[in-house]
Amino acid sequence: MVADKLKYRKADNLIEWYNEVLLKAEVVDFSEVKGFAVYRPYGYSMWESTQRYLDSKFKSIGAENAYFPLLIPEKILNKEKKHVEGFSPEVAWVTMGGDRELDEKLAIRPTSETIMYDSYSKWVKSYRDLPLLLNQWNTMVRWETKETRFLLRGRENLWQEGHCAFASAKEAEENAVDVLGFYRKFMQDILAVPVLVGRKSEKEKFAGAFRTYTVEAVLSNNFTSQAATSHDLAQNFSKAFEIRFLDDKNSWQNVYQTSWGISMRSIGVMVLVHGDDSGLILPPRIAPIQVVVIPILKGTAADKEIREYTKKVETELKALGIRSKLDDRDTYSAGWKFNEYDMRGVPIKIEAGERELSSDSLSVKVRFGGEKYLIKLNELKKISSKLEEIQEKMFEGLKKDMAARIKIEKDKENFILELKNAKAILKVSWCGKEDCENKIKETTGATSRLIPLEKEELIDKKCVFCADKANFNAYFAQSY
Amino acid sequence: MVADKLKYRKADNLIEWYNEVLLKAEVVDFSEVKGFAVYRPYGYSMWESTQRYLDSKFKSIGAENAYFPLLIPEKILNKEKKHVEGFSPEVAWVTMGGDRELDEKLAIRPTSETIMYDSYSKWVKSYRDLPLLLNQWNTMVRWETKETRFLLRGRENLWQEGHCAFASAKEAEENAVDVLGFYRKFMQDILAVPVLVGRKSEKEKFAGAFRTYTVEAVLSNNFTSQAATSHDLAQNFSKAFEIRFLDDKNSWQNVYQTSWGISMRSIGVMVLVHGDDSGLILPPRIAPIQVVVIPILKGTAADKEIREYTKKVETELKALGIRSKLDDRDTYSAGWKFNEYDMRGVPIKIEAGERELSSDSLSVKVRFGGEKYLIKLNELKKISSKLEEIQEKMFEGLKKDMAARIKIEKDKENFILELKNAKAILKVSWCGKEDCENKIKETTGATSRLIPLEKEELIDKKCVFCADKANFNAYFAQSY
Repeated sequence: MVADKLKYRKADNLIEWYNEVLLKAEVVDFSEVKGFAVYRPYGYSMWESTQRYLDSKFKSIGAENAYFPLLIPEKILNKEKKHVEGFSPEVAWVTMGGDRELDEKLAIRPTSETIMYDSYSKWVKSYRDLPLLLNQWNTMVRWETKETRFLLRGRENLWQEGHCAFASAKEAEENAVDVLGFYRKFMQDILAVPVLVGRKSEKEKFAGAFRTYTVEAVLSNNFTSQAATSHDLAQNFSKAFEIRFLDDKNSWQNVYQTSWGISMRSIGVMVLVHGDDSGLILPPRIAPIQVVVIPILKGTAADKEIREYTKKVETELKALGIRSKLDDRDTYSAGWKFNEYDMRGVPIKIEAGERELSSDSLSVKVRFGGEKYLIKLNELKKISSKLEEIQEKMFEGLKKDMAARIKIEKDKENFILELKNAKAILKVSWCGKEDCENKIKETTGATSRLIPLEKEELIDKKCVFCADKANFNAYFAQSY
Repeated sequence: MVADKLKYRKADNLIEWYNEVLLKAEVVDFSEVKGFAVYRPYGYSMWESTQRYLDSKFKSIGAENAYFPLLIPEKILNKEKKHVEGFSPEVAWVTMGGDRELDEKLAIRPTSETIMYDSYSKWVKSYRDLPLLLNQWNTMVRWETKETRFLLRGRENLWQEGHCAFASAKEAEENAVDVLGFYRKFMQDILAVPVLVGRKSEKEKFAGAFRTYTVEAVLSNNFTSQAATSHDLAQNFSKAFEIRFLDDKNSWQNVYQTSWGISMRSIGVMVLVHGDDSGLILPPRIAPIQVVVIPILKGTAADKEIREYTKKVETELKALGIRSKLDDRDTYSAGWKFNEYDMRGVPIKIEAGERELSSDSLSVKVRFGGEKYLIKLNELKKISSKLEEIQEKMFEGLKKDMAARIKIEKDKENFILELKNAKAILKVSWCGKEDCENKIKETTGATSRLIPLEKEELIDKKCVFCADKANFNAYFAQSY
């Protein structure tokens, strides 16, 4: 028996390849509910690592975890006008409890600004109650009408949502930018995915936000994919929800707020950028299994000793703090296992048969790049640095790739053609107007992805598309 | 300003006291959705500790975490007949996505047997795919029509649900009992709540189970409260969902299954049994803050030095691995803080003012029992053993209390009278029949709580209520 191979090739059809690899690597599965995925242990454990990493970052700036109701009454959801306009088309409504119709329908949280800020308005009374930094790790539902995709666009999504209230605009803005930094670091340092960071245009910002910041990854087909967002809400919600406090001069003020979130979409983006026609390629820091140890058993008398040898290797790897697994099942062949762990993207495979046993050595195969070599049993500690080297190389390679995909464009016709056909990520001078962006979208199907955080010299004085005065540079691309 | 005192007394009105203390200690809050609580950071952090403790136990027997859809199609929910009869009266139904009515209504998970086993039937094909041990930490909704109570009976509940499939009945039964042991250990060792363990009667068992095991705590009003359950499902669900595998003799078999869960109800039970008229009393192992350090500031020149002194104390406590907090805010008085941390049930308060500073000492106040004493600054490490001592004493005291509340009863009239008026937890000889239990419930309002796990000598040959042949001993009590 040989493990399944992939039918689709990554270069030919990124999305079909993506679906197939997620299923075959047992990251996710379909469920009986359209648009709702099952997150299998191999996939869910990457989300648990994400939680561990980011949770400690959030706690480092004083955020605490809490939990707010899954369901939101319609009248609460409707309090912030732009917010409800943005979300109501995609809300799942509970209308019955048992066999009785409810008096008021209840939304499954599409995001929790409204239900949380209703509580904030009760809790915040004085400057002494600020800042208030709360985070939730939970699930949210958005009734997508477009085709859903595993992790990238589901009707149900695992995420975290942080919601903070501050006494000043400055603190809120700093918080939004600080958390954006955590997201960038997570994508780059843990998932080995280089990202562009910046703020969203008026058209693309979060419904109800004053300013939205984003982290975007660049894919091999010149699409981008948003991995996380952080919003400066200013006083938009605190006015709608009357979140007011007595300041230290005894005068009433509205709080300044932020909200920020990252979802399992980040793991989907990671799968999209890494991986090849043999399956996933996982960066060591997120890989549930960093090293798999496989004995080559031939049904001979040497098998017993080979098993003991590989057991010893696994024990030593674990002692080194490496997430390792011994697969010595005799119900699957070694060949099947090689394919299986390639499909699952395990960074390093260590194999040992008679040859290795007799020379106190081990065969090492690296998933990323395909390097193969022998090490001595007493050199196992080198595996730790090898894992770090793989992590580094995966990131550096993609960083160069990303830079090569960004094209500065001043010419309108080229801009349209290249954007429409996803020939590159286009960096252009832009007016920033919603109307201009709507026309770009109509013409090319693409939108602005972000405006750089730092002030940059303008590429051109005029907007690449409408020729009005350019206000900043911006990146445009097709996106998932 | 002095922190709020409690209006209700625990001895006079347990449930009103309970609600009030949960709100004032900021464990939970009401939300705008009837029957749905907000879990504030102080309460949620106890749930996070619960997760950390139990998650490692589950993983020790090979269980992995996963995530299945929040919503379950009606036709899947209906597959196991007894199960759906048990749950359908309390299901919240999603009937609309955006502004469109759904073709089939979707239940918010009341429990996930059905949606998970639908996947299991796809995944399990061979004995090599077994055992399959999956767990989810998630939220579930049951549309309670009875009055809801914080943590004990809500329309939304945070819990974990483990779902396992095995090749043999023996493995399933062992798994159900092993996990029951984890729950018992958690209640006793971490929450300092002594519990009775056993199996449920036919009437009280889980809808669809072959056998249900339970962990029950005894309260100060002689009510009991169920803290966790573990079910041996036998082949009831594997037949309905066709979860079949080829065994090693190449013949098709149905798997044997278990499901088991503990919810934040366990924290509610802990609050009910501990605590007094000044607020919560938290066992040190679950307390979010184990020691609070409070400087006594008088607005004199000594304040600065006192602040530094208490800062040093907090730093040393942290270095000892104690969850400690310095509250040196000058926006609240020391008196307000004493009341506040009593309300929150912090196990130890350490205070220091001029007197302590000048003698290199610290005032220690123990929440449980009220002990007060001075220690020298260089004796801080004794606080660790003090915390362990408090944990032990809280448990031992309640263990004696529980034993004293259990009364062996042979007389029918006494049984009825005592049960009806919650005079004791009644241990009796019983037939076990559903019909008999229904009549006991009609007569007394109470039900059987559990049948001991170990075979015991019968208290009497006949059932205490119907006088038919007794089959085992059982505990009866009123319950929350």
